[in-house]
Amino acid sequence: MEQSPEKLARPGMPALDAILGQAFPALDDGFVRLVDYMGNDAAIVQAARVSYGAGTQQVSDDRGLIRYLLRHRHTTPFEMCELKLHVRVPMDAWRQWIRHRAASVNEYSTRYSVAIDAAQRTAPHAWRLQATGNRQGSEGTLDAGAGAALSRQEEELHAHARTVYEERLAAGLAREQARKDLPLATYTEAYWKIDLHNLLHFLALRMDPHAQLEIRTYADLIGREIVARWVPLTWEAFLDYRLGAVSLSRIETAIAAALGRGDADAALALAREAGWLERTVAGELKRHRERAECEEKLAGLGISVPWRS
Amino acid sequence: MEQSPEKLARPGMPALDAILGQAFPALDDGFVRLVDYMGNDAAIVQAARVSYGAGTQQVSDDRGLIRYLLRHRHTTPFEMCELKLHVRVPMDAWRQWIRHRAASVNEYSTRYSVAIDAAQRTAPHAWRLQATGNRQGSEGTLDAGAGAALSRQEEELHAHARTVYEERLAAGLAREQARKDLPLATYTEAYWKIDLHNLLHFLALRMDPHAQLEIRTYADLIGREIVARWVPLTWEAFLDYRLGAVSLSRIETAIAAALGRGDADAALALAREAGWLERTVAGELKRHRERAECEEKLAGLGISVPWRS
Amino acid sequence: MEQSPEKLARPGMPALDAILGQAFPALDDGFVRLVDYMGNDAAIVQAARVSYGAGTQQVSDDRGLIRYLLRHRHTTPFEMCELKLHVRVPMDAWRQWIRHRAASVNEYSTRYSVAIDAAQRTAPHAWRLQATGNRQGSEGTLDAGAGAALSRQEEELHAHARTVYEERLAAGLAREQARKDLPLATYTEAYWKIDLHNLLHFLALRMDPHAQLEIRTYADLIGREIVARWVPLTWEAFLDYRLGAVSLSRIETAIAAALGRGDADAALALAREAGWLERTVAGELKRHRERAECEEKLAGLGISVPWRS
Amino acid sequence: MEQSPEKLARPGMPALDAILGQAFPALDDGFVRLVDYMGNDAAIVQAARVSYGAGTQQVSDDRGLIRYLLRHRHTTPFEMCELKLHVRVPMDAWRQWIRHRAASVNEYSTRYSVAIDAAQRTAPHAWRLQATGNRQGSEGTLDAGAGAALSRQEEELHAHARTVYEERLAAGLAREQARKDLPLATYTEAYWKIDLHNLLHFLALRMDPHAQLEIRTYADLIGREIVARWVPLTWEAFLDYRLGAVSLSRIETAIAAALGRGDADAALALAREAGWLERTVAGELKRHRERAECEEKLAGLGISVPWRS
Repeated sequence: MEQSPEKLARPGMPALDAILGQAFPALDDGFVRLVDYMGNDAAIVQAARVSYGAGTQQVSDDRGLIRYLLRHRHTTPFEMCELKLHVRVPMDAWRQWIRHRAASVNEYSTRYSVAIDAAQRTAPHAWRLQATGNRQGSEGTLDAGAGAALSRQEEELHAHARTVYEERLAAGLAREQARKDLPLATYTEAYWKIDLHNLLHFLALRMDPHAQLEIRTYADLIGREIVARWVPLTWEAFLDYRLGAVSLSRIETAIAAALGRGDADAALALAREAGWLERTVAGELKRHRERAECEEKLAGLGISVPWRS
Repeated sequence: MEQSPEKLARPGMPALDAILGQAFPALDDGFVRLVDYMGNDAAIVQAARVSYGAGTQQVSDDRGLIRYLLRHRHTTPFEMCELKLHVRVPMDAWRQWIRHRAASVNEYSTRYSVAIDAAQRTAPHAWRLQATGNRQGSEGTLDAGAGAALSRQEEELHAHARTVYEERLAAGLAREQARKDLPLATYTEAYWKIDLHNLLHFLALRMDPHAQLEIRTYADLIGREIVARWVPLTWEAFLDYRLGAVSLSRIETAIAAALGRGDADAALALAREAGWLERTVAGELKRHRERAECEEKLAGLGISVPWRS
Repeated sequence: MEQSPEKLARPGMPALDAILGQAFPALDDGFVRLVDYMGNDAAIVQAARVSYGAGTQQVSDDRGLIRYLLRHRHTTPFEMCELKLHVRVPMDAWRQWIRHRAASVNEYSTRYSVAIDAAQRTAPHAWRLQATGNRQGSEGTLDAGAGAALSRQEEELHAHARTVYEERLAAGLAREQARKDLPLATYTEAYWKIDLHNLLHFLALRMDPHAQLEIRTYADLIGREIVARWVPLTWEAFLDYRLGAVSLSRIETAIAAALGRGDADAALALAREAGWLERTVAGELKRHRERAECEEKLAGLGISVPWRS
Repeated sequence: MEQSPEKLARPGMPALDAILGQAFPALDDGFVRLVDYMGNDAAIVQAARVSYGAGTQQVSDDRGLIRYLLRHRHTTPFEMCELKLHVRVPMDAWRQWIRHRAASVNEYSTRYSVAIDAAQRTAPHAWRLQATGNRQGSEGTLDAGAGAALSRQEEELHAHARTVYEERLAAGLAREQARKDLPLATYTEAYWKIDLHNLLHFLALRMDPHAQLEIRTYADLIGREIVARWVPLTWEAFLDYRLGAVSLSRIETAIAAALGRGDADAALALAREAGWLERTVAGELKRHRERAECEEKLAGLGISVPWRS
């Protein structure tokens, strides 16, 4: 393998250098701040090319290669880039965040230091209602009048919890125990470092509309303000092949293919075989989650399903 | 959360117990042997239900829940199951195998012990030709006459390499150095332990037709002989939602949707904008890998593309 | 490598089977419950022996091999065993627990279900004072009279926080948002699965006297009630080579060696060179953390240091 | 937590920048080349301080903090630094290297490209003899005359294997199959990226005198030429607390303490209880590996054992 002539400076990205150290505000009192990074789109290409050796001369260009790698779920070249952030997040959202195990973390210690004196507050118009279709989601908001009462109640609870915390400290209690009844929404801070492959996985899950609003706010910021500036070719490919992609199952593919060749009977048979077409005694189709997902995906492709006609 | 009454035996799977210790032969001298396992389909369901708490009473049945989890790429419940295999594999294939980092491995040590006296042999009809379309694949085989010559040549090289190895040992050389020129195809053995989530990822990559034949042989055995017996509901879902699934990119989805509503012009505009429709001076469409992939996927859905008509 | 005759049942451990499903209580309302496991001491030996091949005939016995492996920090054979627990833990302690990334976790979801109606309560005699020597520890307890007032205050805060939570739910708020001000000490539950190597690392850190009392309570239970029954040879080796071991740094070793040969001057020179012997204007040795650690370790070996005499 | 004023450039290390892109030769035809890095000693300190918050004002200086962190096996701050290397290594050594799972790797693909035309050659004086005390090591070398014969034999085998490889390619065989009988010592290349915590673990294992010479050569280069320039405070601490440290087991500590207070009988009783003092019929102490290790460690501390007198 021929050795390419070497650059004598670390690979960088001027558009990202321009925001080094800058804090992007999130929620009422949080932020995401870029601390450091390693690599760029060119570093991904460089790593992929060590795999391909001389053969890569045929691969046209960087953009094409990055798109190919992401489309075909090659992962290791994207691991060659790293991002390090300083974040300030409610512990409640941090509990979700920390579940992404492939990251390095140093979190503010409330054993060692007095807890940050801030918990996430909710504006009167920002109280979200329980979703009905999705047990773990929210939809719509409470009217602002009722919301105002909840916001006052929240403020009182925060004050109560903080007073208890401070009285415990004043009584000489260990910080590790005094903190035990702080609200989950208390802010924490952390250095969070992750490679680009795992970051994209984090973003795919946490930018998803089903992710909880709080962590989604952070994920959106990281994606649109930071990753988009850092690795623009990878970001474009991520939007095309990951965030904007649709996966069709074996059954969905077979149904779409049957409908594509105009064979509604075959499509119906496939759906029936999958157990999707059971009906109530009243003759209504029973609710079936997988069938509903299929209908939504096919509608997105402009295909209407025969059991609805 | 209500505490379910406890089982007093470890969860098992009789169909898998029946093959404990059994070696499934692979290649000319390799095998896959089931050593131990933990969990079953019910353990996946049980772990998922701790997440959902009382709410899960609404989720219909085990099969439905497992299919839902796999379809929506929930991963942690599948991590609750573990498989432990004893495998015998050419080092050449093992070099690919070991790249799956989320596994525990104890490999036979040729520092400590004399190397296994076997290297993978190739039958006269089994010499594969370089693929033309895919730089890293093979297609078709050499005719058996030419193959026979290669097989004899292979045998001589194996004998030569083994003789050198044994003469080095006889001269008192350290095993760690004597082994240095053994053929890559020399067999090694290992205990390999992995959780079901990561195993399914391994299988999705290594059962793929683009995987190299050798490792694909092992992956097929592990999937069809072992996983299918172990967690039949998960295996069925894996075939439906992973192995048999098709992913459409944002662009492919938009083109399919345009065609679905009969708007070929919009589809052409999308393809043009994506840079897919450049033509040679002779007026032919230039080769474009992503466009070709799109054509193949849409054909699979019974959709014909307007730039081909 | 010769193939050993196969056992036809999964390796097990009767002493552990006897406590399958049993919940060991922890704190006021928590528990650790054994759900499943894989492997035993013999499985560790078996995996190590695949590495050594025929050569292992010389290694005397299972106990000796396990002790050798643990003493020399071999890790992969211990990864061959897995433990799966069901735990109930205050979220505050769970925040520390979840930092161990090499585990698989399914946690009770307070997005999906109503939060568990219990937060860790503190008895009047159990309020711990801030340690003076160690910024992140506790030592001693508050007198029970003052403690009783704190316990009442804790109870009021818990009641307040729970009332707010339930009023939010009654107002139709999404569970994912309603939970935001629950106390950190609210109990959560999880399935937690980890291999033995990583479990021993968890235990070494969390059974340490510097670990916070709450998580130490759980670690002690897991170690002494479960691991000790499961893999008694490994547990014995862990106590000897890990929990009970002392590590001497290069400098400490050199000082001890100098003192061992009676050369106090050399020992003093080493300490001085390391910057350990600076004095205040009053002639007192300045505080020096590393020197203090050295003094404590050498005292444990019956060696007295010359700068103290 | 107060926000420190931000630097507007990425943290770097001039001494490391000076060798960016430089290849350090290893073995007869290998190298280690620094491609990129992230972080420095100050970044470790910065990450540790986010944990400690305002409390850290008391921690004296960077050097002291880094030494404290490494001495007490804090790991996460060291994960904040990353190193990316381009290496050229015999596959035989790479098989050991790749076992370190916490790294990101892109390796030269011999499926995609023709294999590198070089295998590690051994000079006449460099043939190592099998160690007698250690089954998996080497000690001493063959005399150069006998070595010259082995070197010629090695050259012939390399030529034979390469000829077979090239004839297979000429016959149109797939590269993925043609490579199967290349010698294990064939060179490969890779980009290898790892964080500093995991790198130190790699170095502790692979710079150890028991590591195989080939990989030790690379580890020494990475440690002494690269890490020492990159994070000098961490490197110094690593030498003091890791490479140069000695770990005493519970039993060894108890024996040393008994001897320290002059109680040889207690020391003998401890050794006897541990099963270390069994004798042959001739009255000689039987070989006992753990006792021998203890004797060596105590001798290093200037302590002589009573069973030898």
